[in-house]
Amino acid sequence: MIDQYFEVYPKKIEKVLSDFFKMKKENCKNENIKNIIEKIEEYTLRGGKRIRPVLMIFGYKLFHGKNIEEIIKTAASLELVQSYLLIHDDIIDESLLRRGKPTIHKTLEKEYNDKKIGVDLSIIAGDLADSYSVELINNSDFDEKLKYKAIIKLSEIIEYTGYGQVLDILSVFQTDNLEENLLLIHKYKTAKYTIEGPLILGGLLAGGTDFELISKYAINVGIAFQLQDDILGLFGDEKTLGKPVISDLEEGKKTLLIIKMLENASAEEQKKISKILGSKNISFTDLKYVQDLAVKSGALKYSQDMSERLVAQAINAIKDLEAPEKEFLVEFANYVISRKF
Amino acid sequence: MIDQYFEVYPKKIEKVLSDFFKMKKENCKNENIKNIIEKIEEYTLRGGKRIRPVLMIFGYKLFHGKNIEEIIKTAASLELVQSYLLIHDDIIDESLLRRGKPTIHKTLEKEYNDKKIGVDLSIIAGDLADSYSVELINNSDFDEKLKYKAIIKLSEIIEYTGYGQVLDILSVFQTDNLEENLLLIHKYKTAKYTIEGPLILGGLLAGGTDFELISKYAINVGIAFQLQDDILGLFGDEKTLGKPVISDLEEGKKTLLIIKMLENASAEEQKKISKILGSKNISFTDLKYVQDLAVKSGALKYSQDMSERLVAQAINAIKDLEAPEKEFLVEFANYVISRKF
Repeated sequence: MIDQYFEVYPKKIEKVLSDFFKMKKENCKNENIKNIIEKIEEYTLRGGKRIRPVLMIFGYKLFHGKNIEEIIKTAASLELVQSYLLIHDDIIDESLLRRGKPTIHKTLEKEYNDKKIGVDLSIIAGDLADSYSVELINNSDFDEKLKYKAIIKLSEIIEYTGYGQVLDILSVFQTDNLEENLLLIHKYKTAKYTIEGPLILGGLLAGGTDFELISKYAINVGIAFQLQDDILGLFGDEKTLGKPVISDLEEGKKTLLIIKMLENASAEEQKKISKILGSKNISFTDLKYVQDLAVKSGALKYSQDMSERLVAQAINAIKDLEAPEKEFLVEFANYVISRKF
Repeated sequence: MIDQYFEVYPKKIEKVLSDFFKMKKENCKNENIKNIIEKIEEYTLRGGKRIRPVLMIFGYKLFHGKNIEEIIKTAASLELVQSYLLIHDDIIDESLLRRGKPTIHKTLEKEYNDKKIGVDLSIIAGDLADSYSVELINNSDFDEKLKYKAIIKLSEIIEYTGYGQVLDILSVFQTDNLEENLLLIHKYKTAKYTIEGPLILGGLLAGGTDFELISKYAINVGIAFQLQDDILGLFGDEKTLGKPVISDLEEGKKTLLIIKMLENASAEEQKKISKILGSKNISFTDLKYVQDLAVKSGALKYSQDMSERLVAQAINAIKDLEAPEKEFLVEFANYVISRKF
């Protein structure tokens, strides 16, 4: 059932986005502005799982929405929000690549032969993508009162993602409560933004009002989703993932795996891990060392156990729901911890 | 009549903002997040003319809106939009000061003893201020259909401000049509954002639908407003302005004054101007030199004439309006070109 969703909807969402950008470019008379619109378009259409719009469509169906064509049009807005946040994220992380291609600030840096102009234009490109997301919601035929509720909720989702980002940036200074702080970041940056938010947005547009159960489900699944992301970031298969498996280590990401590993490590092991984390030339031996320590220290098992517990709690939260909606949610929760990409 | 508006409303707007931030801080349990909220609060409450919310309130009255208390609550959102855009602007311009105090990225750089973290947190602080502006509109008691229209319009205004910013960043590469390009930047970054947008937002919340006249008025007045800003930036009185009169020169701003000056200047004068523009130690002699050349070359007169023409066109656009609304608009248009700060 999930496979079906991810087979059918991403293409339709991309068609909506592509039509939207075609219209934006046609209406634009200035070449410099058009160039930025094209950059946002190319970035947004690079691919990705389109998980947020797909969950928004599912949330709509879950609350008995019937206008599938309009919800597809509206759900595509979440990919513009994603571009907004990722473009700023790329600047903050000084990332060179996103989905296998140069980040916008690197593309623009090269084009204008100026690093600062690349970053400056990308800050604005992100802001523009945010305005585009609102425009796309407005373009749909839903009742204005429903669209209003969706836009207010979307703004709140973006606010919490920002809080997660603040905590993430400041986590380098964190000396205690590392795990608690990390789980809060996962709640704000992933669970609310990637799972709970999209489901509720879809539900709102279907006229739903009571999101308590779905919220409990989504927060648990969302944190598990991020924990699995971090496990794949260390143990995943490069080809299936579409990104080098050392990139999390290069970024110096303090995942739950790393936190637990360091907690249980000897002084020598701690020293070695700290040297590898954030280094720009990580060898296969380094990767193997971290992988082995993750297993040996119990960090991997700790992460996996937590994911499974969260997924069990999520499924328990929706135990009184009926088929076929329940079926999808259970399947999705299980997919989250079993996925390979 | 204008003085009255600027005497009465800014204080009320600041009260709304201050209550809003009080609520945000009370609801926030995390010290790192609260710290960012406090930074946005302090930045937003530093003062400024509050011209955008005041014009929004006026736009509301112009379209016969009666609920003054609610429009004040809603109009305050424009100061949060202003913080959003200015925080990003400060990063782009690498500004040290804003309204006489350190910019947010400088404050955070100092606090965390890390330049990059200062900038990264400020990108997010800007994004958060944008979410807050939507929240503040949502908090008002206006009908949801009206608030919906206002939020959609606001997003469009922010989009165009972004386009103006793109053109502004890229204007260093501009070799021809300098004046045309600059006037387009003024239209997007100032006229639409500072004058037309707020008036229409107020009008929308009053239930207005026809903004053709007001739009024509506002775009003309808005461009004149920016031209006057640039004149004050070279000839103004430091004390009245609240910022050093050399700061535009230090920033290397290519105002209409500078463009016209360079057009008519000798090779030697051009060389000297280019040397002064963007320099970090501008002397009183340098300032005097640029001022004299602005007069001698006719650049000052050219700018002033254009402002006056624009204001005349603006007043002509609203000739069929009736008092007392017309009175305010005429007075405001004249204030724009006669103001000293």
